[in-house]
Amino acid sequence: MSGLLSRETEETERLVTFSDGVFAIAITLLVLDISVPTVPAGEPASVLPTLVFEQWHELFGYVFSFLVIGSYWVLHRRVFVYIEKSDKRLVWLNLLFLLFVAFVPYATSLFTAYPDRFGVMFYAGTLAATGFLLAGLWGHAARTRLVQEGLPPRAMAIRAARFFVSPTVFVLSIGIAFIDPFVAIFSWLLVLPFTALFESRLVNYLEGETEESTS
Amino acid sequence: MSGLLSRETEETERLVTFSDGVFAIAITLLVLDISVPTVPAGEPASVLPTLVFEQWHELFGYVFSFLVIGSYWVLHRRVFVYIEKSDKRLVWLNLLFLLFVAFVPYATSLFTAYPDRFGVMFYAGTLAATGFLLAGLWGHAARTRLVQEGLPPRAMAIRAARFFVSPTVFVLSIGIAFIDPFVAIFSWLLVLPFTALFESRLVNYLEGETEESTS
Amino acid sequence: MSGLLSRETEETERLVTFSDGVFAIAITLLVLDISVPTVPAGEPASVLPTLVFEQWHELFGYVFSFLVIGSYWVLHRRVFVYIEKSDKRLVWLNLLFLLFVAFVPYATSLFTAYPDRFGVMFYAGTLAATGFLLAGLWGHAARTRLVQEGLPPRAMAIRAARFFVSPTVFVLSIGIAFIDPFVAIFSWLLVLPFTALFESRLVNYLEGETEESTS
Amino acid sequence: MSGLLSRETEETERLVTFSDGVFAIAITLLVLDISVPTVPAGEPASVLPTLVFEQWHELFGYVFSFLVIGSYWVLHRRVFVYIEKSDKRLVWLNLLFLLFVAFVPYATSLFTAYPDRFGVMFYAGTLAATGFLLAGLWGHAARTRLVQEGLPPRAMAIRAARFFVSPTVFVLSIGIAFIDPFVAIFSWLLVLPFTALFESRLVNYLEGETEESTS
Repeated sequence: MSGLLSRETEETERLVTFSDGVFAIAITLLVLDISVPTVPAGEPASVLPTLVFEQWHELFGYVFSFLVIGSYWVLHRRVFVYIEKSDKRLVWLNLLFLLFVAFVPYATSLFTAYPDRFGVMFYAGTLAATGFLLAGLWGHAARTRLVQEGLPPRAMAIRAARFFVSPTVFVLSIGIAFIDPFVAIFSWLLVLPFTALFESRLVNYLEGETEESTS
Repeated sequence: MSGLLSRETEETERLVTFSDGVFAIAITLLVLDISVPTVPAGEPASVLPTLVFEQWHELFGYVFSFLVIGSYWVLHRRVFVYIEKSDKRLVWLNLLFLLFVAFVPYATSLFTAYPDRFGVMFYAGTLAATGFLLAGLWGHAARTRLVQEGLPPRAMAIRAARFFVSPTVFVLSIGIAFIDPFVAIFSWLLVLPFTALFESRLVNYLEGETEESTS
Repeated sequence: MSGLLSRETEETERLVTFSDGVFAIAITLLVLDISVPTVPAGEPASVLPTLVFEQWHELFGYVFSFLVIGSYWVLHRRVFVYIEKSDKRLVWLNLLFLLFVAFVPYATSLFTAYPDRFGVMFYAGTLAATGFLLAGLWGHAARTRLVQEGLPPRAMAIRAARFFVSPTVFVLSIGIAFIDPFVAIFSWLLVLPFTALFESRLVNYLEGETEESTS
Repeated sequence: MSGLLSRETEETERLVTFSDGVFAIAITLLVLDISVPTVPAGEPASVLPTLVFEQWHELFGYVFSFLVIGSYWVLHRRVFVYIEKSDKRLVWLNLLFLLFVAFVPYATSLFTAYPDRFGVMFYAGTLAATGFLLAGLWGHAARTRLVQEGLPPRAMAIRAARFFVSPTVFVLSIGIAFIDPFVAIFSWLLVLPFTALFESRLVNYLEGETEESTS
């Protein structure tokens, strides 16, 4: 391969800076979805607290989406700790992943405005697609050895498994939403503890084996 | 602990870049809260200055929130000068802290639209929570020795104290707002000089002792 | 030239960081163009999916503009892999380029609101101008030797040619839009495969020659 | 001074990253000021070009403010090439400067909505204040020797002079706006060539002397 062209794709630094920018903006734009309530003419200002509390689904949407984008950022950061080179496909997979990250504020707006079956499914679908793209990005990097050398295949497979946990929960919740949208929303709250459990159990167990194989 | 997993959480660089992004966006989004006034049909354009000056609470909200987010950024920068490693809890405490930073533009909108008891308390509560989370983040880093080595416990305690100054003022102002919202707003103006006084007095005094104990 | 003044313009690091910021914001602001549909009073919530699918042109505008800005980011990144110094003109050409990048969300809004002849031409014109400015930036850098040393003129000319591919397609589509706006929109979809084809054919062929001349 | 505290303020890296973030966001938010025109019901779509061209003052506001914020970014970059340490005052002067940079989109909105005497003066006043704050920041850095060592006082004075050129033009235009707002707008167009002229004449001349004194 040409040494002149290879430099163009190899460095990952700007990839990470640019991604951090998109993450930071998407996560901060979420706040624009919370509308300041209007006290109707003729009513006393003391109804304001009630109006704000009636916005609980907008506030929930803000907090939940912030934590979800935040957790995808945490995963993205973990992925790029190991990735040392980039190629064209990685750059474009990353852009597609960011396309869905930047789409989360819209999905959140739609879901908080219409928290029924369609809104729930649309939101869960967006988050599932975001997660699968990150898993795909890691899969591509692991397969084409863009990751740091010496990382055992087993360790890479563990990470891949981890990236599937949260999108899988979101996909399952789409099915649940057919029966009851509210139960589906509730199932999302399981994502974070479930991911944590998965990590501390399975990962630690497999890491043990990996340790042996590297030593 | 596994050497393979440890790298995932240790580096603090992206944590800082991402946080700077959220700070920069939240602080700049504040300007969207200031609405361009509409000169009513039939009135001369010369009423515009009056209309702009009638927006003084929006302009005050912009300037004050800008300086408050700015001062939290200054404190965050000071915290991360000492933090050299990160762990999972630090990453999530930082995300929670940023969740409140990014929420400040909404709290500002609500406060400038309704600068009465509830608006004042909501705004002060948001800023207090933001401040306490930063203090908690520092506490965690100091307790688990994520900070640079050789930093004496005393010096770390001083910093912790400093991070409590501004959220404490905001908490006190919530109480004051029960009696008089306007006095509460006025009390916020004490945050910056009070923090400065606290620093130059107490900190310098204790630093003197710290100096001796390090030398 | 004065050593004191030369430092002011030479470094390219902040140029790249700032550009990445503008790219990240422009690409994420695109999502604000997709409006959450309002279910008309009196209609059941089940019309929501239909309303969202009727927004297909807004969703198309989001995805397409995201990929176009993304591909300009990829090209910008490739350009700055080779540029090692900057001068005043480079800084201002880069600012002009970013002026058009940041204008893309407006052009997208106009195009998705009015996807007829004028909207299509306005959008294509914006993207063409963006592309030509990047080509001009590279031309300036190549001509004044701001690029890394040892890069053969041939290799630089190849890159220049590559930067003309996508703006040329957009210019041609302006002509097509006179006859049929829909065909013009369709022609844009050729940009990505066409660029890819151009690269893998012409570039690889010429790279072969370049390789010989450098070895 | 305490070595423990000194590290907190000395590094300038995050100061620059954060500033670049605010610059990038403020400059990109300008595009939100350009509204997509609405074709009135009953009129043909062919009136759209006319409606867009009737927005010329919004488009002018976008382009002009983009270039002004851009030129302040260029100046800020030049300032921080020489600044190697920071202190508390520098951090806060920089925050105040950014407060005005982030305010430019509002001033632009007001000016493009009401391009008469008050709008012109408000806009020119904002840009003048922004410029003077940057000059003040440089003055503080030069006076307290936060700049790199070996920079002759003369060279620092030249830079100071340069930072006064554009805010001075804006202040003069406030006076002109009293007589004729349109002439004031026109006078702004002199900022860029005037700055360029000032640089190439005075600066080069004085640099000549500086060269001698350093050699």
